[in-house]
Amino acid sequence: MRNVDLNHEKKRIISFIKDYMLSSGFSKGIIGISGGLDSSVVAALAVEALGKEKVTGVMMPYKKSNPNSLNDALLLASKIAFNYRIIDITPMVDSWFDNYEPEASKLRQGNYMARIRMTVLYDLSSKDNALVIGTGNFSELMTGYTTQYGDNACAFEPIGHLYKTEVRKLAKLLNIPSSIVDKHPSADLWKGQTDESELGISYCVLDQILHAFLEKKMSKEKMIESGFNSKDIDRVVDLYKKSEYKRNMPSCLK
Amino acid sequence: MRNVDLNHEKKRIISFIKDYMLSSGFSKGIIGISGGLDSSVVAALAVEALGKEKVTGVMMPYKKSNPNSLNDALLLASKIAFNYRIIDITPMVDSWFDNYEPEASKLRQGNYMARIRMTVLYDLSSKDNALVIGTGNFSELMTGYTTQYGDNACAFEPIGHLYKTEVRKLAKLLNIPSSIVDKHPSADLWKGQTDESELGISYCVLDQILHAFLEKKMSKEKMIESGFNSKDIDRVVDLYKKSEYKRNMPSCLK
Repeated sequence: MRNVDLNHEKKRIISFIKDYMLSSGFSKGIIGISGGLDSSVVAALAVEALGKEKVTGVMMPYKKSNPNSLNDALLLASKIAFNYRIIDITPMVDSWFDNYEPEASKLRQGNYMARIRMTVLYDLSSKDNALVIGTGNFSELMTGYTTQYGDNACAFEPIGHLYKTEVRKLAKLLNIPSSIVDKHPSADLWKGQTDESELGISYCVLDQILHAFLEKKMSKEKMIESGFNSKDIDRVVDLYKKSEYKRNMPSCLK
Repeated sequence: MRNVDLNHEKKRIISFIKDYMLSSGFSKGIIGISGGLDSSVVAALAVEALGKEKVTGVMMPYKKSNPNSLNDALLLASKIAFNYRIIDITPMVDSWFDNYEPEASKLRQGNYMARIRMTVLYDLSSKDNALVIGTGNFSELMTGYTTQYGDNACAFEPIGHLYKTEVRKLAKLLNIPSSIVDKHPSADLWKGQTDESELGISYCVLDQILHAFLEKKMSKEKMIESGFNSKDIDRVVDLYKKSEYKRNMPSCLK
């Protein structure tokens, strides 16, 4: 795995946030705060870059969300002191499924929720003249573990170049509360969901395989020699290839 | 203005739709049908490419939408014979604004509606195992006359390389009903809205300036010599530059 100087990364990201905002002509940022690791780290960095009065966190629980998610988000807000607003997205989600699609799978419901959160966040960004700051990390962007036009929708991605395992280390450096740093990553789109069970692999192994495959350009044989499991390698490469469309703009004829 | 062979373009687009679907592993397409020119043309081309039983049009009126929009969409469906579904998006839109943001501007409401339509369309695409086929044209993509993560969200853009004035000509070739071809283009996000009054320029002039600026790479001086108005040129170049973010994925650090 690569060895990143996180103090240096922290400075680089803060500059990136400042520069991006300045060049876009915005002074305020708005962030969907889930109570999880990534949005906590981005909120902390945005506050350092822009000042706490220029950052708004929006917490958007659904009626079935784990209450710990909102509790952790509020704990973060109390610690980092950005402005925040709590929006219960239940009416916006249920007005679709209850009226039109009561039999939808939990996967469909989860993706719908992610897109409703984007829709709410973008509307509030327009109201507040703020930019939507993204919370995606490299591991999820490379495996497509995001909802297209949902949580992956933003103006820019301050931690989009960092592996999940690096984001966790950065969170410790930023003094993010340990209840957030230590819990199992989850999109909290349904009860008991965790990233690692859905991805079928731990972030620790995922990040190492992504690094070997994408950055070191290692062949499968080389990766197996390095101690990785053939099934894990196939899984990661498959996730990477199948999610290419999420990392590109829609195709057009020339 | 460039001289496009529309019979050839029609064939090229039909191949593009077939190829894109095949390479993505999908046989079905789903399209938001507004009753306007672009979605009508895309629906007609998709039906030729995939067969009418493989194309679903989704009409998504809001309570304040012009009833002519839905009437034109239904006229198109009766003529082209794709499957269709009518979804009144009023409950999904009002559950946000009535409960949380009753003072929102019509612009915010319009963008919210466009994103709700995307959200509904993507959910139905997941239900039906279909790909969302985009309806954006080159003129609107280059000026940013779209809602980001709303009507510009799709898997691919079959007419994204054609100017609006070319799409109109193609519509005639495809025998799209004249009530659709001849009406003033409008996003119908509020009463009386027309594209040309919002853009501040007619599509005829817009397309010529875009062509001179983007394809012929003409200087402003050259364009003025060619007979374009300085104010119109500035307007188009400004729209183009300010909308660059809509044509790119969110920025990331390396």
